[in-house]
Amino acid sequence: MKKKALPLGKVYQLIEPGPVVMVATRWRDKTNIMTMSWHMMVEFEPPTLACIISANNYSFGLLKASRECVINIPTAELAEKVVRCGNMSGRKVDKFQALGLTPATAVSVSAPLIAECYANLECKLVDTRMANKYNMFILEVVKAWIDRSVKQPRTLHHRGRGAFMIAGETVKLPSRMK
Amino acid sequence: MKKKALPLGKVYQLIEPGPVVMVATRWRDKTNIMTMSWHMMVEFEPPTLACIISANNYSFGLLKASRECVINIPTAELAEKVVRCGNMSGRKVDKFQALGLTPATAVSVSAPLIAECYANLECKLVDTRMANKYNMFILEVVKAWIDRSVKQPRTLHHRGRGAFMIAGETVKLPSRMK
Repeated sequence: MKKKALPLGKVYQLIEPGPVVMVATRWRDKTNIMTMSWHMMVEFEPPTLACIISANNYSFGLLKASRECVINIPTAELAEKVVRCGNMSGRKVDKFQALGLTPATAVSVSAPLIAECYANLECKLVDTRMANKYNMFILEVVKAWIDRSVKQPRTLHHRGRGAFMIAGETVKLPSRMK
Repeated sequence: MKKKALPLGKVYQLIEPGPVVMVATRWRDKTNIMTMSWHMMVEFEPPTLACIISANNYSFGLLKASRECVINIPTAELAEKVVRCGNMSGRKVDKFQALGLTPATAVSVSAPLIAECYANLECKLVDTRMANKYNMFILEVVKAWIDRSVKQPRTLHHRGRGAFMIAGETVKLPSRMK
């Protein structure tokens, strides 16, 4: 894999812009991928994020049982697969096979990385107290990978009903904000 | 105000793409604005969102005391004010005055709308149980406003340290996703 480890203190820079992500889960012989937009950073370091995964989703049970997942960040070339992934259930199909995506071995979790995504965050589930009320999970990123050849990632940002904004130009302003 | 009410069921379409927002709070005679990127949808309807506001921020106390705020969504023309807002504290200055922004009266909350932002979400604070551990607040949007003349909002998406991705083109794919 040509990806390099990303220092954990930089993970927020990938999540803050709000990209659509693909969550990979594995429990025993079951593996799944789901498309997700409802996530946010909670803490810089250790990088911690919150996400919403509905109890209707097959991934909900796999995440709760395994307490691990990989957050994969796709770019525009994968848009069609991102949508198809959101429109099928892993209960019936192996999504890696159905979508032609490549599982790669993670170092800290059993869930796979999606090789085609430019960044991958290996996560441990650290808090499920909001799972019943809000379908909310708190994840700690324990290992992060990035393809450094992707300088301006054309991430996807869901505007609803299959409309995706593709990340545009980046501007830099003098700032003391982290 | 030329803005129109946005049906509450469409609020997620503004938040899901992950824009930087400006949170306006008011408690008694104190008003503040803060720049925020750590937020996500929690429920479609009533539209509910989660956000992280550090206890170090002046807005933390104003939000806890008033239990209300307005989430304002700026576009690229406001980038310089968004950054300046994030680099000053409301403890010392009136940010509306300092930034040359216009407060407009909300209908359901006492916190003001920022007139210059293309969309404004009037919010009630509905759950503070995660405030101590995660600085997390759960907000319900009770009224939403949008400037319908803005067809392709050039929202700002923070990549860290003053780098902002500006929303690019929107593509539409056949999808059953909401």
